Amino acid sequence: MAELHVVLHLDDPEEKRLGIGLTNLENLIRAAGGPAHVNAHFVVNGPGVKLFKELKQEFSQRLLALAEAGIHFVACQNALKANAMDPSELPEGMRTVPAGILELVRLQQEEGCAYIKP
Amino acid sequence: MAELHVVLHLDDPEEKRLGIGLTNLENLIRAAGGPAHVNAHFVVNGPGVKLFKELKQEFSQRLLALAEAGIHFVACQNALKANAMDPSELPEGMRTVPAGILELVRLQQEEGCAYIKP
Amino acid sequence: MAELHVVLHLDDPEEKRLGIGLTNLENLIRAAGGPAHVNAHFVVNGPGVKLFKELKQEFSQRLLALAEAGIHFVACQNALKANAMDPSELPEGMRTVPAGILELVRLQQEEGCAYIKP
Repeated sequence: MAELHVVLHLDDPEEKRLGIGLTNLENLIRAAGGPAHVNAHFVVNGPGVKLFKELKQEFSQRLLALAEAGIHFVACQNALKANAMDPSELPEGMRTVPAGILELVRLQQEEGCAYIKP
Repeated sequence: MAELHVVLHLDDPEEKRLGIGLTNLENLIRAAGGPAHVNAHFVVNGPGVKLFKELKQEFSQRLLALAEAGIHFVACQNALKANAMDPSELPEGMRTVPAGILELVRLQQEEGCAYIKP
Repeated sequence: MAELHVVLHLDDPEEKRLGIGLTNLENLIRAAGGPAHVNAHFVVNGPGVKLFKELKQEFSQRLLALAEAGIHFVACQNALKANAMDPSELPEGMRTVPAGILELVRLQQEEGCAYIKP
């Protein structure tokens, strides 16, 4: 069982903020002694989803490596619709949830996730 | 009894961030199945209060609709004073609290609110 | 025993955000009736650490006063290394932690700290 529960939140379409968030996760996994100790989620909503339409390879590779280590990357379907994006445009390793805001509340309330806004 | 407890925090005087926050609340209410399922607070402090001095009608209408649905909009009295604003300048549907930072801590600790920074 | 538990998070090297964070802490202590009622932490990671390399006196004085009142200011060692900074460059009153992200999660999960992103 993971002992660290955390949700990171991105709603700005800024590469800088995504980079900080990915580094946060990489550092957390290392500090925790490996991905098995971490239950981590990365929720993207609002204009933040635009960043994932044509994601630079540097970021898509890091995201996929983290997803394969068990980190949950999800994008908000409301935000995809508002930005005329199709889920098929998301990078490998990223799923969707109906409402990002509900996921952010649910993860904190039900799974006891700490919240981090990079 | 509401089952979703959340506090949104705004301290930037940026319309973009307010718009995201209002959309978050509108989406949350819809995803939750109506306002009765949501105990939601919107706390404005720091320079963020300046945005509410002459709030555009688009925002004041959405804020009032959410306030009438039971969302609690509050502005920090410390921040109003620091920006030479009077509570009477706030839009309809918005109240004040003595210290926004205390409200943000209290809502998380006492009411178990999830925290979201749009 | 302190009854208010809170962690503030800074990862932007922006004086404006640091100023808001320090004001948050000053207002919280006043609203709480003094520093004995507050268990507060200020965690700096990511590019935010760059701000502390040559911190303006206005900020270093306020930080030291808060540190002397019992507020815990810590910088992330990963971030210091990434920005070629030595802990000795940090202002008086500020310590380091191995991983800022782990500290942010730990404080929320283990000490029940409310999270604030100024």
